[in-house]
Amino acid sequence: MKRYFLKIEYNGNNFHGWQKQINHLTIQGCINDAIRKLSKENVNVVGAGRTDAGVHARGQVAHVDLDNEWDTFKLMQAINFHLKPNLISINSISKVSKDLHARFSAIERHYIFRIFIKRTPLALDKDFFLHINRKIDVKKMIEASKFLIGTHDFTTFRSSICQSKSPVKTLNEINFKINKLENGKIIDIELKAKSFLHNQVRSIIGSLINVGNGKWPPSKIKDILNSKDRCRCGPVVSPHGLYLNNVVYPIDVFNY
Amino acid sequence: MKRYFLKIEYNGNNFHGWQKQINHLTIQGCINDAIRKLSKENVNVVGAGRTDAGVHARGQVAHVDLDNEWDTFKLMQAINFHLKPNLISINSISKVSKDLHARFSAIERHYIFRIFIKRTPLALDKDFFLHINRKIDVKKMIEASKFLIGTHDFTTFRSSICQSKSPVKTLNEINFKINKLENGKIIDIELKAKSFLHNQVRSIIGSLINVGNGKWPPSKIKDILNSKDRCRCGPVVSPHGLYLNNVVYPIDVFNY
Repeated sequence: MKRYFLKIEYNGNNFHGWQKQINHLTIQGCINDAIRKLSKENVNVVGAGRTDAGVHARGQVAHVDLDNEWDTFKLMQAINFHLKPNLISINSISKVSKDLHARFSAIERHYIFRIFIKRTPLALDKDFFLHINRKIDVKKMIEASKFLIGTHDFTTFRSSICQSKSPVKTLNEINFKINKLENGKIIDIELKAKSFLHNQVRSIIGSLINVGNGKWPPSKIKDILNSKDRCRCGPVVSPHGLYLNNVVYPIDVFNY
Repeated sequence: MKRYFLKIEYNGNNFHGWQKQINHLTIQGCINDAIRKLSKENVNVVGAGRTDAGVHARGQVAHVDLDNEWDTFKLMQAINFHLKPNLISINSISKVSKDLHARFSAIERHYIFRIFIKRTPLALDKDFFLHINRKIDVKKMIEASKFLIGTHDFTTFRSSICQSKSPVKTLNEINFKINKLENGKIIDIELKAKSFLHNQVRSIIGSLINVGNGKWPPSKIKDILNSKDRCRCGPVVSPHGLYLNNVVYPIDVFNY
């Protein structure tokens, strides 16, 4: 039995999320099917994060255990062949020791949330951003975001169906990148933590947007965080702007 | 009667090209329908370029003549409302004098062709690039492209159904921009000319790729150009990487 780590890109729009479900197209389900077609084994890939429907990935990571020894490049080519025409691509595969686990060994997850500020509708970019058609004050969003850094009880920013044992999480970083365009502006917000609660990123972004559009002062983020009251959270924003961008492990899995 | 210029963005994947057709979804057809819904006039928008099925635009320009006087911002909002859910967006509208014509007054058209070099399939970027899964020599492509600059008989790079009176066109510029990514490389090739023959850009790109992948030496581009023989052209590449990016007029239409 050999363990393989997969680095995975997908367009979340066409899937009912990562986790396999009967009668629904999911990313985990498609990858399981593709690997079964070539290995003839009853496999189950284990993902680092269970992304929701509509959420994209450029750097989801999963592991799978296979009886047979495979050349990693040939295995990657074969899985990608069987994944067609689904918009999932295995971008890298690495053979690892069995004590490395895609979910439990991860030391940091990086999500990016993309906002497109543009007066008129998005046409080319519609499925890949949250669209906001008014000016927003990014400086105030940055100011507000600082209250969230560190270890906190994130109950306010946690979905009611979240299965995590504890609402206490440590948010290591929130970074903003602004890209000015001819007819608008792109704001990329990167969040880094060992792990996230269900809907935590989308709840944080919705609340920060309430600050950016002037509805709330930046200090309100501190208030709602401290309240530990889900009802005081901003709107949970749409998944189309959210990307699982990278998962970090104690070793550089795909380059060692 | 007032003339309005429209700056238009669209995702070409869902349309049978720009030009209106009975029983097919086209960009011109959708914009005509949207304007008719609000103005109750039997209008026909005139585009600067008739893009093929699958070709995108960030800066297509069209004009339309309306009996009523409109506030340009309100007109833009109203057309965009009626265009939903089609992936077309009017990004700017300007009122102009009747001697300015979207097609005949254009002094330069800018197309961009986008290539994604990546070993594995595209998932997130599939509809927006030509995918090449092997290394290509961009320096040789740049060298070869220089033979095409200037005024030439472009018969070699012209579709057999092209309706242009003459195969002689002047290519003002071909510019390459390379963007290195973690798992690949994006090559944006910008072509500027007063006007183009049907399939000229996609025929040129297919021939330059024959140079980039080592099939042809750069000088072969000069040979096939001089041959004026359509049969000697490289493959016409897929439209998904092609964007009508900008149309230039004697006045700065959208900022004057």
